[in-house]
Amino acid sequence: MIASFGHGDKTLAFAGHTDVVPPGPLEQWLEDPFAANIRDDKLIGRGAADMKTGIAAMLAATERFLARVPAPSCRLMWMITSDEEGEAEYGSKVIKAVLDEQQVKLDYCIVGEPTARMSTGDTIKTGRRGAISARLRVFGKQGHVAYPQYADNAIHKMNRVVSTLNALQWDEGSDDFPGTSLQITHINSGGFTDNIVPAQCDICFNLRYSHRFNQTELKTLIADAVATQTDDFELEWERPCEPYFTHPQKTDSLIGHAEQAIYKHTGVFPVLSTSGGTSDGRFFADADAQVIELGVPNASIHQANEWVRLKDLSLLENIYTSLLENVAG
Amino acid sequence: MIASFGHGDKTLAFAGHTDVVPPGPLEQWLEDPFAANIRDDKLIGRGAADMKTGIAAMLAATERFLARVPAPSCRLMWMITSDEEGEAEYGSKVIKAVLDEQQVKLDYCIVGEPTARMSTGDTIKTGRRGAISARLRVFGKQGHVAYPQYADNAIHKMNRVVSTLNALQWDEGSDDFPGTSLQITHINSGGFTDNIVPAQCDICFNLRYSHRFNQTELKTLIADAVATQTDDFELEWERPCEPYFTHPQKTDSLIGHAEQAIYKHTGVFPVLSTSGGTSDGRFFADADAQVIELGVPNASIHQANEWVRLKDLSLLENIYTSLLENVAG
Ligand SMILES: [Zn+2]
Ligand SMILES: [Zn+2]
Repeated sequence: MIASFGHGDKTLAFAGHTDVVPPGPLEQWLEDPFAANIRDDKLIGRGAADMKTGIAAMLAATERFLARVPAPSCRLMWMITSDEEGEAEYGSKVIKAVLDEQQVKLDYCIVGEPTARMSTGDTIKTGRRGAISARLRVFGKQGHVAYPQYADNAIHKMNRVVSTLNALQWDEGSDDFPGTSLQITHINSGGFTDNIVPAQCDICFNLRYSHRFNQTELKTLIADAVATQTDDFELEWERPCEPYFTHPQKTDSLIGHAEQAIYKHTGVFPVLSTSGGTSDGRFFADADAQVIELGVPNASIHQANEWVRLKDLSLLENIYTSLLENVAG
Repeated sequence: MIASFGHGDKTLAFAGHTDVVPPGPLEQWLEDPFAANIRDDKLIGRGAADMKTGIAAMLAATERFLARVPAPSCRLMWMITSDEEGEAEYGSKVIKAVLDEQQVKLDYCIVGEPTARMSTGDTIKTGRRGAISARLRVFGKQGHVAYPQYADNAIHKMNRVVSTLNALQWDEGSDDFPGTSLQITHINSGGFTDNIVPAQCDICFNLRYSHRFNQTELKTLIADAVATQTDDFELEWERPCEPYFTHPQKTDSLIGHAEQAIYKHTGVFPVLSTSGGTSDGRFFADADAQVIELGVPNASIHQANEWVRLKDLSLLENIYTSLLENVAG
């Protein structure tokens, strides 16, 4: 869904998703995961934190804001997807393509993902590392273990490849941005016969990378590293996610507006974080758009009995209202 | 089956097995694998080379020998098992235990396995390397790929272990005996999730080792090598096969008698080899027994249309007859 309101010079967008991860074993839930039951001081249900309530808070905040400011200085835009938790092929990526086609330029984008650690406003995200996965197969030559001189052990070869990959020097990261890292997530040499030297070995690996790299550089760097050990390999890249990073601006800073809105309601400034996995923020970040993620605590997401404290939810509504006033008032 | 004949000071034993490997796809056979059909100059059937015909040749040779030498200078002994191709738990190992219990000491042992390359007598085995397999599991700590600092990647750890194992210096072997080698035969890290750092990784490996090592030494050496990289591992040993090696004797050498018998019928001396996998010879070799393996060509064993050339079979009968005369005549 793409919706807009008003005609300001600049555009302030809210991005969110309505889809959720599966509930998992129902017997672990104290309440129906697909209702919104309140138990003590918490609202319980799948999406309570990630992130149906973020959408609700932004909706309530917008209503309050428009009652006070009927003609905002910015065009307000809503970009809601139901393909975020899955492959995200038909979600925010498609929305951004439509916006580009319509030559709609975003200036400010608030992603309503749960970003807080303990209570709403303690942490906001101002960027995310990139991510990319790969499958690598190296080929050797099958043979009998008694005659290794006539075989080429694919596991031994892969061992040298993995050593080479793990010896690559990555940026260590900075206070602003975590560094780059490579993790082997799977290894398998196929069928097992006690006296056979195996002819192939597969690994999967995942790279999290800072905005110092782009994917083309990374792919070349990895392929070159593998090629130092063997030229008999297949390398396939999967699930690329580009990084994004919103530099704090001197003037008219979305981060600054969010900090002030949070300070107003909590008395403290948020931690600016770029850690964690990838997010849809990457699709909206470009040279023009300032993107932040600001939401409720994320401690319970993707678990049974996902919850949000009622006070964190109304705090988010208050912060969003002040943020709208700061940017578009 | 254990059978003996005569009462000489010394004992000359023949060892063999009647079991065979499965025939595999029947449509690949030109003849019934469980008959003994002759096609041109070859006898075709499962066991034609490995090693029903070895038993037949020794039986025919013994008949001819006893017709000429009714009271041989050695006790003749036959040790036939039907558990050689499988786990070999109830075969020659049990026969040797019975012989030990009955205090029967072997002096000369001829194993009728197919040892020739091109034609009978061109190669005999005078020893075999030992073999032992192992399963190794190393444990790490599961975590999210975005936060490797809180995880301990079991694949990365196993990679260091494999590098350590592959860096072990083994004996290179000699003209008499091939060296020791270690081959990783399988590796697997279990289930795959693209964003999860895996918590465990398994390998299987196989060691072929010369008579310079014994299993106790090897087990300690490997466990110590693994322990340089992690103390969180499980190591299980499987399928141990001790090596054997028959040193050529100055006098009364079984190898010498075999060489003379082969030379008599072929005009050339055999190659003495210790290569290849393990054999039942290991069960009969001890400080007293001289063990050799002497049989027909092995090119077709464990394959469809297993065959032996008729002339190789009658040559083996002739060689066995002369060998019996040389040792027990
Ligand atoms: Zn989410
Ligand atoms: Zn055999």
